[in-house]
Amino acid sequence: MKTVIVIGASGKMGQAAMTGLGHHRIVTASQSGNGCDHKVDITDPSSLHALFKAVGTFDAVVNAVGYCEYAPFVEMTDEQWHTTINSKLLGQMNIVKIGSRYISEGGSFTLISGILSLKPIPMAIADATTSGAIETFAKCVAHELPRAIRVNVINPTVLEESWDVYGEMMPGFQPVPGSLVGKAFQRSVDGFITGQILTVDA
Amino acid sequence: MKTVIVIGASGKMGQAAMTGLGHHRIVTASQSGNGCDHKVDITDPSSLHALFKAVGTFDAVVNAVGYCEYAPFVEMTDEQWHTTINSKLLGQMNIVKIGSRYISEGGSFTLISGILSLKPIPMAIADATTSGAIETFAKCVAHELPRAIRVNVINPTVLEESWDVYGEMMPGFQPVPGSLVGKAFQRSVDGFITGQILTVDA
Repeated sequence: MKTVIVIGASGKMGQAAMTGLGHHRIVTASQSGNGCDHKVDITDPSSLHALFKAVGTFDAVVNAVGYCEYAPFVEMTDEQWHTTINSKLLGQMNIVKIGSRYISEGGSFTLISGILSLKPIPMAIADATTSGAIETFAKCVAHELPRAIRVNVINPTVLEESWDVYGEMMPGFQPVPGSLVGKAFQRSVDGFITGQILTVDA
Repeated sequence: MKTVIVIGASGKMGQAAMTGLGHHRIVTASQSGNGCDHKVDITDPSSLHALFKAVGTFDAVVNAVGYCEYAPFVEMTDEQWHTTINSKLLGQMNIVKIGSRYISEGGSFTLISGILSLKPIPMAIADATTSGAIETFAKCVAHELPRAIRVNVINPTVLEESWDVYGEMMPGFQPVPGSLVGKAFQRSVDGFITGQILTVDA
């Protein structure tokens, strides 16, 4: 049994991740902290330090959050780009950079990208671009993490549980059950793979 | 014959690009402006507006610049990440966003990534990550650019002409002649392809 910190545990993707992690000791965190063990903002290094110190010893960090702005490319403002990059790219890199100081030897980080980098749709250029960035980041940084620490990225399509929110903007997409996405998170946490992109699509 | 703006024309990669573009009318630009027709800073939108207005009518923009910081991931500062993202990612996106307002119908943008996203080496995580981002950006934004405007990315390995500078940090890499990389730039500018990554490696 491992101790796994799940960031974004109260969201639909965090819930999906946890369907594959029930055999572990789960420590939950989210931006609001509501209903979770801890409150954390991945764009704030001091908040991440506080989380990792408070948890103490842990073997894995699973991240299920990354805020994106949606707009046509020609209308997207610098502010919208910075907001998206700060959360989905720099925020997720913060988790690995800071978490590496605290996580147990052989521990793992599991980050998240998203299917819109592979199946582009209108309005989603910032989501897609930062997904491509975090995937390349994981593939490359895996070679230099110390103490056998691993890092993988889950690239899920839309969840059945989120279809009522996102379905209208994703015509022709086939949602998958959160429990299938949970298998990918489990494969990252329980396996020995690193630098991998685990795409879950239908 | 097309009018092609080459940004970074005085650098080794810009020189390589131009080996494939000799049959066109070339307008050169660089950050210093030394020996070029124009001075431009791709991280400054007003500088890009001024360049495109000064050139007037043009059919293609070729970018051969993108500044990257090099450091081990765990030592790379937020400032180093921001510098790299501002130039290689946001700077190149600026070229497309702003240039789209000025470029002729059916015009093309050719951006640059780099082989270290496919063949990672120590110290190059920011280069690799932003290369992955700009490649995904081009693949996805190609679908939404107006007026049949195209966008491609060249992913070159190290140039023979730059081997004296980069060779030591890239053991086991095979440099290619700039004229081979120039073919890829030509294929992007003279072809009808869009949303493509043209990898030039040996």
